Amino acid sequence: MPTIDPSGQSKSDTYRLITNLVVPRPIAWITSQSDAGVVNLAPFSYFNVFGSDPPYVAVGIGRRDNGEPKDTARNIEETGAFVIHLVTEELIGAMNLSAADFPPDQSELEAAGLALAPGERIQVPRLTAAPASLECRLHQVVPLGANQLFIAEVVLFHLADQLFDDRGPFGGFAPIGRLGSPSVYCRTIDRFELPRISHEQWLTQA
Amino acid sequence: MPTIDPSGQSKSDTYRLITNLVVPRPIAWITSQSDAGVVNLAPFSYFNVFGSDPPYVAVGIGRRDNGEPKDTARNIEETGAFVIHLVTEELIGAMNLSAADFPPDQSELEAAGLALAPGERIQVPRLTAAPASLECRLHQVVPLGANQLFIAEVVLFHLADQLFDDRGPFGGFAPIGRLGSPSVYCRTIDRFELPRISHEQWLTQA
Repeated sequence: MPTIDPSGQSKSDTYRLITNLVVPRPIAWITSQSDAGVVNLAPFSYFNVFGSDPPYVAVGIGRRDNGEPKDTARNIEETGAFVIHLVTEELIGAMNLSAADFPPDQSELEAAGLALAPGERIQVPRLTAAPASLECRLHQVVPLGANQLFIAEVVLFHLADQLFDDRGPFGGFAPIGRLGSPSVYCRTIDRFELPRISHEQWLTQA
Repeated sequence: MPTIDPSGQSKSDTYRLITNLVVPRPIAWITSQSDAGVVNLAPFSYFNVFGSDPPYVAVGIGRRDNGEPKDTARNIEETGAFVIHLVTEELIGAMNLSAADFPPDQSELEAAGLALAPGERIQVPRLTAAPASLECRLHQVVPLGANQLFIAEVVLFHLADQLFDDRGPFGGFAPIGRLGSPSVYCRTIDRFELPRISHEQWLTQA
């Protein structure tokens, strides 16, 4: 079985390795806003939930190739707030467009035809097209090597009526997941249940 | 569009809500070891990669119903090390067994028929059956409400030969993902590529 020591290889090789191994990753499609009021939209897959009491999420954000912080990271530090949207299949094209390298004076939101609604608990607006939006308040920033980990508390959930259909709550909710680099994703419709077993059940079966 | 304020509902309702929304989650199947040498095995889906320079991962671990830390959390704090294994389909049954409530004197590893190999950079052993194992050294513990966030650096990767088959590196690697509670998972074989587009390409298409 081969072993790989990350200290002995390039940063890009380690990136390719770890992003192919730690899968599937949930995608945080984030709206953030600068102090000047410019709204930014971008997807991130260094993301997960880390608590429910209260509900905490964390998003890891790297730097641009020139070492400067990305718009999303700078905005979150400026305003202490952002909105996370989950990416369902009908939003894939718009999500991919929002990852493009648009110049600062051109809006990814306009290009993708996305409308905004004002935030209720925070100043940052959310995408009306997303079936699930999480208004987040920054809790803590943890520097992690070349990246920053933004830990935030979810203060309000917006959920589309379609999430509560005849399949039960969230039965038809199937956001895409991020797999390896570059640019591979998975659907989440191929599902199975795995009821947790107790020690007693195992003793009976064994 | 309904809104839900987590401060106005129970912890278990918020847990159900956020674990159904933030999906699909990667699964860290973790071996850890107590100071006394007892090896523990358990799966966690509050998990992701958060950096590649150096490679950082984070795992969120809650407490038992009685408020005491789980074995994995206590072991990581004691030894500062653990191994993360990714869960491919042939390991699903063993993973589910390792989540059962075994008494401390009975080994989930034995019950699941899993063998261990010694760690190379850390004292904690890894599962020989897993095609990808990440030896991790604890970097930082961040308290997050009722949970703890364990941030760790990956110091060595173990990769099975089967990950480098004729589909290219990781082409056939398809760990399962965690979806909503209780106990729903997804396969990751239904994939698609979404090449990132540039602003120039968009201008040409638009």
